[in-house]
Amino acid sequence: MHHIISVTVENKFGVLSRIAGLFAGRGYNIGSLAVGPTEKEDISTIVLTVSGDDKIIEQVIKQLNRLIDVIKVVDLTEKEIVKRELLLIKISAEHTTKRSELFQICEVFKSKIVGITNKNVIIELSGAPAKIDAFINIMRPYGILEVSRTGLIALAR
Amino acid sequence: MHHIISVTVENKFGVLSRIAGLFAGRGYNIGSLAVGPTEKEDISTIVLTVSGDDKIIEQVIKQLNRLIDVIKVVDLTEKEIVKRELLLIKISAEHTTKRSELFQICEVFKSKIVGITNKNVIIELSGAPAKIDAFINIMRPYGILEVSRTGLIALAR
Repeated sequence: MHHIISVTVENKFGVLSRIAGLFAGRGYNIGSLAVGPTEKEDISTIVLTVSGDDKIIEQVIKQLNRLIDVIKVVDLTEKEIVKRELLLIKISAEHTTKRSELFQICEVFKSKIVGITNKNVIIELSGAPAKIDAFINIMRPYGILEVSRTGLIALAR
Repeated sequence: MHHIISVTVENKFGVLSRIAGLFAGRGYNIGSLAVGPTEKEDISTIVLTVSGDDKIIEQVIKQLNRLIDVIKVVDLTEKEIVKRELLLIKISAEHTTKRSELFQICEVFKSKIVGITNKNVIIELSGAPAKIDAFINIMRPYGILEVSRTGLIALAR
């Protein structure tokens, strides 16, 4: 099962390395990971997604709790949550005839055009992961030059 | 100086741990970090911010390039880039009299209300880091319950 785990940590040096090491050492593959600041300067939140057997994930959570500088671990998987991701995507502007078509799709998805040159268009889109996937797929024929995508973040309702 | 480094990696097990370990082992503190998929299934991008002496950062980049499963390392710092972050923030709804004020601020920032109950309001906002900081600050008086924030992602124009 695909799990979403939120780890609140003290912003101390090496904590990310210890967490990533814990997963790597046990052969769990982290799907996405986002480390961001919270409203408190010395506290960060790490949201990560990981696939695996429920019992194994339970063990991982216990081990995370034991790590130095880890304050709180929450498995958000079963909870009612808001899940969001952010995408920046650079599309080729070679086929300028297709531009208006491109702009219309952007409107449908409520994405923002944040950069435009003769060579490319940069688009910003936030949303649930499925929406981001759908947008990337629909952009393929226009010529994707580059993609930058944050890991998933989530809050319980 | 504050550096933004983009690392393209093969999606193999342990690569994040090696990268985080490289920084931890040398005492560099990673400010934010975002690991996300690219348009290719087996390739991920890691965008991280790190502060330090320019010469030291140069060394770190060289060492990153030497790591197994690292495909490309780009220091985006000096380049013309689009920088974006995503925020989910949960605000107390205890003072319901302040709600319309809250909604107006959300409109000014073009943020989206993605969840609302009797107890709280969840707001989604994407933008440049300074905008995210400003929004969090302006939300403080309303009672911040929880914050989830992605690391920075960036694309060169």
